[in-house]
Amino acid sequence: MATDTGKECWVGFDLGGTKMLATVFDADFRPLGRRRRKTRGHEGVDVGIKRIVRTIHEALQEAKLDPARITGIGIGCPGPIDPDRGIVLDTPNLGWRNVPLRDLVRQEFDCDVAVVNDVDAGIFGEYRFGAARGTRCAVGIFPGTGIGGGCIYEGRIFRGAAVTCVEIGHTYIAPPGGLSGVGRKGTLESVASRLAIAAAAAQAAFRGEAPRLMQEAGTDLANIRSSMLASAIAAGDRAIERIVREAAEQLGIAIANVVHILAPETIVLGGGLVEAMPRLFVDVAGQAARRLVLSPYVDTFKVLPAELGDDAGVLGAAAWAREVVGGKLRVTSDE
Amino acid sequence: MATDTGKECWVGFDLGGTKMLATVFDADFRPLGRRRRKTRGHEGVDVGIKRIVRTIHEALQEAKLDPARITGIGIGCPGPIDPDRGIVLDTPNLGWRNVPLRDLVRQEFDCDVAVVNDVDAGIFGEYRFGAARGTRCAVGIFPGTGIGGGCIYEGRIFRGAAVTCVEIGHTYIAPPGGLSGVGRKGTLESVASRLAIAAAAAQAAFRGEAPRLMQEAGTDLANIRSSMLASAIAAGDRAIERIVREAAEQLGIAIANVVHILAPETIVLGGGLVEAMPRLFVDVAGQAARRLVLSPYVDTFKVLPAELGDDAGVLGAAAWAREVVGGKLRVTSDE
Repeated sequence: MATDTGKECWVGFDLGGTKMLATVFDADFRPLGRRRRKTRGHEGVDVGIKRIVRTIHEALQEAKLDPARITGIGIGCPGPIDPDRGIVLDTPNLGWRNVPLRDLVRQEFDCDVAVVNDVDAGIFGEYRFGAARGTRCAVGIFPGTGIGGGCIYEGRIFRGAAVTCVEIGHTYIAPPGGLSGVGRKGTLESVASRLAIAAAAAQAAFRGEAPRLMQEAGTDLANIRSSMLASAIAAGDRAIERIVREAAEQLGIAIANVVHILAPETIVLGGGLVEAMPRLFVDVAGQAARRLVLSPYVDTFKVLPAELGDDAGVLGAAAWAREVVGGKLRVTSDE
Repeated sequence: MATDTGKECWVGFDLGGTKMLATVFDADFRPLGRRRRKTRGHEGVDVGIKRIVRTIHEALQEAKLDPARITGIGIGCPGPIDPDRGIVLDTPNLGWRNVPLRDLVRQEFDCDVAVVNDVDAGIFGEYRFGAARGTRCAVGIFPGTGIGGGCIYEGRIFRGAAVTCVEIGHTYIAPPGGLSGVGRKGTLESVASRLAIAAAAAQAAFRGEAPRLMQEAGTDLANIRSSMLASAIAAGDRAIERIVREAAEQLGIAIANVVHILAPETIVLGGGLVEAMPRLFVDVAGQAARRLVLSPYVDTFKVLPAELGDDAGVLGAAAWAREVVGGKLRVTSDE
């Protein structure tokens, strides 16, 4: 059944807060099959793992490949991960804690599985195949429901001893406080994530300051998607534009901090919000960061939009799995 | 004249905002001679370079070593450095900008010279010989006139492509504003450096809330040294204790940010302020950071006081010079 028997075959998996995506790649990281599905993290870990496994199986079917043909699987997940043991430590957006994802998936597919942070996977994808190709130090910031971050330093994912890091969304750019709608008050997430923006936008709509958004999405946060914010701005909702610009300014402060700490050459902005309004985010956040850094850093970095869209995460996860596993060919009994 | 002819001999130099220190080391980094002097950066670059050269010569005299015996010199300087070209890019505390320090010193001593950021040197010293020995990722934060930072990642100084980084003092932990007394408003330096603390302490003294400090130092910032803050607290100046605790809390926010971004196992606090009040800084900042990080990070890091005092910078600069130069023995004509 396999179309290219005997060659390497990698699966990249992106486990997001709202959707999951599996893509099967050949040895040159050309896509052979893919499958997308809602995540529904609140249904619990057991249901979630079954859903992940089924999604991979269906992507394999589309690729016309037997599961025994998989060389390795790379999975990107939100939040801090123990990358050596493949454990999801804490993902508020899924409600998962200390989930041994690597072993659970390995049981099903009997191949090497690498678990990484989702934005580490995304920026590794952009580093290998997209906007950050060949950069010595590249940082990814992907605003979504929360705000994830990742860093590639001299060709490798930058990480802690037993935990992933570059959790930019959880850094403080204002005095810390108790819980806000998204994470702790004072953190970047609490002011610049899609959820924070949607909350401010819903208030504007409720007050009658954003007629187009009101018409399209109403005041229910769950309905206010990135594309609707973009179309409300395009249609003249000035209040929404002010809210998004303010969020991008806050992102610029976090970028200035990242430049002062990591001095990356490239900062890639990705995720749904940025995809919907790439110029607004890249320009406003980039200009704010440039205004806020010490003079020796002003010309050391570029802020760029991601190039690969949804493919960054699956490509990066698959390519990183290959780095870790070392591209060993699997010897299977069915060939 | 030399005491151990033919062996390696390294000079470590620490160029601080207020004082400079040169130490001559043997191949095992045992000190052979040292010399300390005021920096007087405001007298300009030419005078400054002459002063550096004279200080090194005098340390060599104390070590009874001929200048031709030096294998290499490592110099730590505040602010961002171009480490490959040995250029001091911008040090507001010295008033120096784009100074080709490496070449200027090399002209005099005709040996390899490595220029690094001062806290990169300090944390490399602590990593090789002190509080952070053998750590995979160690961050140094040294509050002084400003607040410097540095990071050792997997045995090497973490750096940008053409600039040093981990400039923690210049990261924003509050909304950015115009210039404050130290750097930009909103940065860690503007609220937790010795200068910021001294300014608040002088106000307290002026208002009659810090009788002991008033008696010892008056209201002139230049007189309020770290040791006086410590003795005022010991003598019962509660207002001064509140001011220092508040600064340490702010340092804790910056540490939480560093943990979220770099996930170091060790954070070493050093410099004059911390040396004068080590427990207060380490405990208050460490507890604040632990309270502010995401749960998976709570037990991943230690906050420790520096162990080597003033020796950290010179030891680290000399040991780093050896890393970079590779410990090549110099062939000299006088032996």
